[in-house]
Amino acid sequence: MDNVLGIKEAGGAGETPEKRLAALGWVLPAAPKPVAAYVPWVRSGNLLFVAGQIAFRDGALMAVGGVPGGVSAAVAKACAAQCALNALAVARAAVGTLDAVRRVVRVGVFVCSEAGFYDQPGVANGASDVFVAVFGEMGRHARAAVGSIALPLGSPVEVEVVFEVAGGGEGGVA
Amino acid sequence: MDNVLGIKEAGGAGETPEKRLAALGWVLPAAPKPVAAYVPWVRSGNLLFVAGQIAFRDGALMAVGGVPGGVSAAVAKACAAQCALNALAVARAAVGTLDAVRRVVRVGVFVCSEAGFYDQPGVANGASDVFVAVFGEMGRHARAAVGSIALPLGSPVEVEVVFEVAGGGEGGVA
Amino acid sequence: MDNVLGIKEAGGAGETPEKRLAALGWVLPAAPKPVAAYVPWVRSGNLLFVAGQIAFRDGALMAVGGVPGGVSAAVAKACAAQCALNALAVARAAVGTLDAVRRVVRVGVFVCSEAGFYDQPGVANGASDVFVAVFGEMGRHARAAVGSIALPLGSPVEVEVVFEVAGGGEGGVA
Repeated sequence: MDNVLGIKEAGGAGETPEKRLAALGWVLPAAPKPVAAYVPWVRSGNLLFVAGQIAFRDGALMAVGGVPGGVSAAVAKACAAQCALNALAVARAAVGTLDAVRRVVRVGVFVCSEAGFYDQPGVANGASDVFVAVFGEMGRHARAAVGSIALPLGSPVEVEVVFEVAGGGEGGVA
Repeated sequence: MDNVLGIKEAGGAGETPEKRLAALGWVLPAAPKPVAAYVPWVRSGNLLFVAGQIAFRDGALMAVGGVPGGVSAAVAKACAAQCALNALAVARAAVGTLDAVRRVVRVGVFVCSEAGFYDQPGVANGASDVFVAVFGEMGRHARAAVGSIALPLGSPVEVEVVFEVAGGGEGGVA
Repeated sequence: MDNVLGIKEAGGAGETPEKRLAALGWVLPAAPKPVAAYVPWVRSGNLLFVAGQIAFRDGALMAVGGVPGGVSAAVAKACAAQCALNALAVARAAVGTLDAVRRVVRVGVFVCSEAGFYDQPGVANGASDVFVAVFGEMGRHARAAVGSIALPLGSPVEVEVVFEVAGGGEGGVA
């Protein structure tokens, strides 16, 4: 399947995640505000828990509905990529720079699905490809991709991430 | 939206979670028994993983079914609050007192949803509000709220929590 | 309900998980390859995050569809057991031997469900029983079992696991 964001291979040894991001020409959004009574991230030790991100881009959802009747798998894959970018924006806000991320540990991908739609992995690759493009090998992650009957505000995808980050630090409120 | 439990602001600097809980007039239930072959909590390092809690109150589910046809969003929000109280009861059983909780880290909220119901965040706020009322700022958490076609025993909501707790300690079996 | 794998009680003090596994006569599969752009496991500190496992056995899904119309609860329970075995295969590949597992910490079980099917716990016990048979008390875990409208490739069950493992070590790519 085509890489929905035109993702190139992560490059040579001198590269950092922030340099890769810049080379890819991606500009992270302002860290999305959660749509409810919680915070975008909490850090505990070296683990950074980023709240579930939906497919907001420029302040609006990219699409609404379930795959494949309401939203095509290709559009949902692009939504998954956007959710991943939103998670990166939160991570950068949490630790200052993506270069402080040591590893993408665990990614949970919920895909709003109609009964009988079984390519949640293909949709979720939209998110996984973003992490690998930005972090290279350290962007590879354990993943659970599952279908959901309905997601917040009608988002076709929700992505939740656990990062391992460098250094000490407190649980934080953005 | 009204706070379903009539939650007041968490108070001054001298307060502790246990004092806040008492001031709120909430009595935690006996720690719920899991309905199957697992344990209510496991601790690993400073992280306390509490098993998914359903909307048991006084030994019975508060409601059964999906939102909004089977159960209203308001009732589901109250169920979410009850799930959170049940999770607090487990946490207290695990570490002896809620004052040993340093942070609510991550909350997963599953809302039994009919297709097209998109206010999982509003329902999940029932749980989030409880944590903030009891722990103040340290109760704010990363959250994933998603729809589920069906939950155990027909519970409208299931809530799973990761807490950060103080001190050393072993993985435990309640 | 009958133990779907004919699971015996875990034995005496001299036993290890690998010995129990051998005594049970279970042969772990080759560690399943993920069906998409991610890795089977990531380790962060003492936590080993194993990616969501579906009901592959001998290279094919054991069943396809939702419970109870497409797949019976009993078959889904056997699928959950297989998912657990697949997760053990990944864990062994990650740390060399199951004897390096100190605790099964958290198990997430997604059960492909039709609306109104509420025995996700009974299905999930298929996975829980495997962990307890192999690890004894240390196999008991915090668990969230929820329904899902659709899972990857049509698997009736997906199981995700966090293990606590011994010793130091880096995040890994299998």
